[in-house]
Amino acid sequence: MSNVLVIGAGGVSSVTVHKMAMLPNVFKNITLASRTLKKCQDIQTKVKEKYNININIAKLDADNINETVKLINKISPFLIINLALPYQDLNIMEACLITNTHYLDTANYEPKDEAKFEYSWQWDYSKKFQEKGLMALLGSGFDPGVTNVYTAHTKKHFLNSIHSLDILDCNAGDHGHPFATNFNPEINIREVTSESKHWENNNWQVGPALTNKVSFDFPEIGPKNMYLMYHEELESLVKNFPEIKKARFWMTFGDSYLKHIEVLQNIGMTSIKPINYNGMDIVPLQFLKQVLPDPGSLGNRTKGKTCIGTIITGQKNGKEETHYTYNICDHEQCYEEVGSQAISYTTGVPAMIGAMLMIQKIWYKPGVWNVEQFDPDPFMDLLNKHGLPSQTIQLDKKLSF
Amino acid sequence: MSNVLVIGAGGVSSVTVHKMAMLPNVFKNITLASRTLKKCQDIQTKVKEKYNININIAKLDADNINETVKLINKISPFLIINLALPYQDLNIMEACLITNTHYLDTANYEPKDEAKFEYSWQWDYSKKFQEKGLMALLGSGFDPGVTNVYTAHTKKHFLNSIHSLDILDCNAGDHGHPFATNFNPEINIREVTSESKHWENNNWQVGPALTNKVSFDFPEIGPKNMYLMYHEELESLVKNFPEIKKARFWMTFGDSYLKHIEVLQNIGMTSIKPINYNGMDIVPLQFLKQVLPDPGSLGNRTKGKTCIGTIITGQKNGKEETHYTYNICDHEQCYEEVGSQAISYTTGVPAMIGAMLMIQKIWYKPGVWNVEQFDPDPFMDLLNKHGLPSQTIQLDKKLSF
Repeated sequence: MSNVLVIGAGGVSSVTVHKMAMLPNVFKNITLASRTLKKCQDIQTKVKEKYNININIAKLDADNINETVKLINKISPFLIINLALPYQDLNIMEACLITNTHYLDTANYEPKDEAKFEYSWQWDYSKKFQEKGLMALLGSGFDPGVTNVYTAHTKKHFLNSIHSLDILDCNAGDHGHPFATNFNPEINIREVTSESKHWENNNWQVGPALTNKVSFDFPEIGPKNMYLMYHEELESLVKNFPEIKKARFWMTFGDSYLKHIEVLQNIGMTSIKPINYNGMDIVPLQFLKQVLPDPGSLGNRTKGKTCIGTIITGQKNGKEETHYTYNICDHEQCYEEVGSQAISYTTGVPAMIGAMLMIQKIWYKPGVWNVEQFDPDPFMDLLNKHGLPSQTIQLDKKLSF
Repeated sequence: MSNVLVIGAGGVSSVTVHKMAMLPNVFKNITLASRTLKKCQDIQTKVKEKYNININIAKLDADNINETVKLINKISPFLIINLALPYQDLNIMEACLITNTHYLDTANYEPKDEAKFEYSWQWDYSKKFQEKGLMALLGSGFDPGVTNVYTAHTKKHFLNSIHSLDILDCNAGDHGHPFATNFNPEINIREVTSESKHWENNNWQVGPALTNKVSFDFPEIGPKNMYLMYHEELESLVKNFPEIKKARFWMTFGDSYLKHIEVLQNIGMTSIKPINYNGMDIVPLQFLKQVLPDPGSLGNRTKGKTCIGTIITGQKNGKEETHYTYNICDHEQCYEEVGSQAISYTTGVPAMIGAMLMIQKIWYKPGVWNVEQFDPDPFMDLLNKHGLPSQTIQLDKKLSF
């Protein structure tokens, strides 16, 4: 059974489908569904031209559980790969339970009317999935996803226990626009303008958005300012590695990007509260999305690299060691290979790998799981083989900040 | 005959109507008309409470010439005081010609679909106004308006001829918002983001917006950065004082204001070209206007002063002299007097003065005129009496920039 249904036809989905089409022995039958059929057709055409593989497409409103159930029943997939908006996670999981179908996603559920994301809603489904013998793999992208695998891999091979974990996400790509977001602006701006939150002293420490700044010298890229943020994998990692004393997530932003975010926030354009415009209720952030460049249009103009990884300090045979595991990804090379830039590529490839491990029953266990709860080695091997090779270096000492 | 019709019920109009209500012997019968009757009612109520004067109000769409003609015929005013949007100037002038009514405004005509303003459209009406024995007084606000009177006054009393004219407009008011515009954001942002243009070497010299910056030490305010811009009075002043070799207009902006303007331009929010939003055509600048604070709400929270004036260098008996004439206006004092801040006050008072001079036939000549074409002395006297006193100081030498 290697019949899969991919829901969502954005940049990440395009990468995942391209990568699956390159492995016809694993993914024998791919159906791609989206609210906008045109987006599915575009990916279908590219995959046909590039690999001479036929994928099926379908129109689907994934907010509607009945509609999703009907489509699943029609094609009987082994697995749903959910690459739609995070607002839709729970409805798609419901449809999986109704139809006895496995589930995988890359980003955790987020309610639409509140800028808040956490795993609890999805973890609460664990018993139901177990009872039905179904598996749900959460957060199989890059961060979350590969960063969780890096953490498990570091613990397995280099350390006896982890004291501190820092996830560093650097995008040194340049798309030439004064301001654009690399993925859905609505999701992106909600994430960036949220409070920072990190784990320390057995508790979540909350701070204002975009204020704790450190310059870090990234491999192959050089020094960049990075900012303390909250990112969803911290929640599962401190749960699954309870020995962790400190866990932080950092992301780089240029001064110009931050200036734009600050102004847009100041004037209320990032608000998700509707305002009255000529008698209509319009959400400023959704209007802003229409004004900004389409993230899908950035691929063929983005140059430069990304570097995402984990710096982990812990004990090894009674001594302190620090290991830095990272991937370097080149925007232009990604675009040449699958027609998408590195932000979509680094998320889309691990989604394909997670799906492959489930189909091959290498990672296969009823319940709702995060990726660090499985053996990291097969995932690490597949990353090396499918375009996201990793490197690990031992640092002289732990981070000074 | 001192029956007047005021069209437009924004911040400037409120000041003009308050000031007229304080002079019941000059303005015996005031009618205030606007598309939004509620705005007229608000001003009507305040004027009644403050001065026990009854003004009439009417609902009017001034885009519609027939509707304007009907209203004029009903109340037979001596003069229309046009304080509506500059898009409507020509239609209101047409209505004046049809009904044999004099005309006054504070800002020149600007086509709605193009960020361009110039006097030619209105000057072209001169012959028609002359033939009917009607007078139109253009630009009787502060700048244009008082700055033109200052120029004529300097020439009349201090110099034999003018070589260079610099108009300096400083608003050191603080409304406490990260970003807001002091008048209609649509008009304000169109003005600020337009190319700079100044007169030099017998020609208009055009440059990019907001790049030519000079720090100037303003009386009672201190040093502020001011930027070379285009402002409409330059066009009439170099025509009416053909000896002028160089004429420039400068306006102060804070770094934060400019940062907001830059970002809003970068992302296309200041564009007047409609974009598609859920099947509707929406002009980004008009949506932005709805998101920003209402300029009318700034009055009771703005502190600080404005300083607007002219620095004029010329010959006096064969020697070079430089004279600086300016007014200082305090936002909080204006609010206390008439319930509006200084930006509305400095425009609204000169509109009342222009109307008074026309009604009293002190300034009275058929045709279309700019204010510098009349004797400046009675206007200067009335400025001193009605809240906008001016000072003139002689500078040691001409400006160094």
